[in-house]
Amino acid sequence: MTNLSQVKAIVFDVFGTVVDWQGTIIREVSALGDKINVSRNWGDFADRWRQGYHDGKRSALNGERDWLKADTMHWERLELLQGEFGLDALSHEELKHLNKVWHRLTPWPDSVEGLERLKKKFIIGTLSNGDNGLLVHMAKNAGLPWDVVMGAESFKSYKPDPKVYLGAVDLLGYQAHEVMVAAAHLSDLNNARKYGLRTGFVVRPDEFGDSGVAADLIANEEIDVEASDFIDLAKKMGA
Amino acid sequence: MTNLSQVKAIVFDVFGTVVDWQGTIIREVSALGDKINVSRNWGDFADRWRQGYHDGKRSALNGERDWLKADTMHWERLELLQGEFGLDALSHEELKHLNKVWHRLTPWPDSVEGLERLKKKFIIGTLSNGDNGLLVHMAKNAGLPWDVVMGAESFKSYKPDPKVYLGAVDLLGYQAHEVMVAAAHLSDLNNARKYGLRTGFVVRPDEFGDSGVAADLIANEEIDVEASDFIDLAKKMGA
Repeated sequence: MTNLSQVKAIVFDVFGTVVDWQGTIIREVSALGDKINVSRNWGDFADRWRQGYHDGKRSALNGERDWLKADTMHWERLELLQGEFGLDALSHEELKHLNKVWHRLTPWPDSVEGLERLKKKFIIGTLSNGDNGLLVHMAKNAGLPWDVVMGAESFKSYKPDPKVYLGAVDLLGYQAHEVMVAAAHLSDLNNARKYGLRTGFVVRPDEFGDSGVAADLIANEEIDVEASDFIDLAKKMGA
Repeated sequence: MTNLSQVKAIVFDVFGTVVDWQGTIIREVSALGDKINVSRNWGDFADRWRQGYHDGKRSALNGERDWLKADTMHWERLELLQGEFGLDALSHEELKHLNKVWHRLTPWPDSVEGLERLKKKFIIGTLSNGDNGLLVHMAKNAGLPWDVVMGAESFKSYKPDPKVYLGAVDLLGYQAHEVMVAAAHLSDLNNARKYGLRTGFVVRPDEFGDSGVAADLIANEEIDVEASDFIDLAKKMGA
């Protein structure tokens, strides 16, 4: 196992790793649906909405579109999905409010306590493909005690672009091996490792709910630390 | 007086407004001087060192140099001042450590308490010409509870460039009149006002110590709020 005593900062993937995006969206939109007597597969709605963001990100990485705020990508896809999911009865104001649900995502039950513990020993921050404003508002709503918010906006690119991983290292003034990425997604961690950062895998089996998408459950052997949740990660990092 | 009920975020100038840069540097460097039996006018040393940063910033704004981290500008000037101020006996390691004093600047006595109060009602952040890494390390050392750290690095420019003021507004997803700049320097506030932001003046009479530089003591009539310290600012902003 790698020597982790040199780790000074831990930067976290956010969507799925820190917050339960699918569960939050299902709760908010099903409450809205109840109000206008519409019942649909809201898990499917959440996944399709999230996909709009992945599509926008890919277009930006390919150079087909300029860098975009997540709010904009979410809004574009929400307008497309509105009719198909019976949400035409929502007012413009209600739809605008719904679009900001991404600012109100609920943390997993262990997230805040684990981060509070880790913050005592490490600089803790986000390393997310969300944009900085969204991440700041989310942290304020959810009580996420970040020392530093770094999102796509900080580097005007998206993971897996090395500019993001190495940009975070440079911003903090550290060497790559002094920074750990913590994420529920092995692809993210494999990229981080490729650029010399340390890796912490946190299992989030419920990220994708009943949607049939398989969460990563088992670390590969290159992962530096594997944890069942953020409190377990804090313990394993001596915090 | 302007209606301030729409202010949602307060962003702070840092050097001089939140932390006592001159006092901290005098304390650290005079302790080092004592160790090697050197006594100089350390207030003058602090001011001359700080000037190196202002010079570097101006060169970057003029396009004479690329954007630079504050650590780099501080290091360049420290190497120039070392001989003149009798610091040649310091080891490379000691000099490197001294250069990081800018990460260890001491807050004014009311800063942390005032920020904690303001944080309950507003998004609070930095809007500094320092770079993000330096500001993150300073906050960690001093317990400054920022929701968001925004420095020169966020916008790859420096105040008074409007890109910095308006970049902060855009990053937060707000309108200009929903963001207040708080600073001890009227020039900073006059610029913020020019671009539509709200302004909070906090008097810091001791910023420049005995150096003969005059601190701003009296707000002009365009300033939205005038406060004697951060606790007074919190009171006046209803936090």
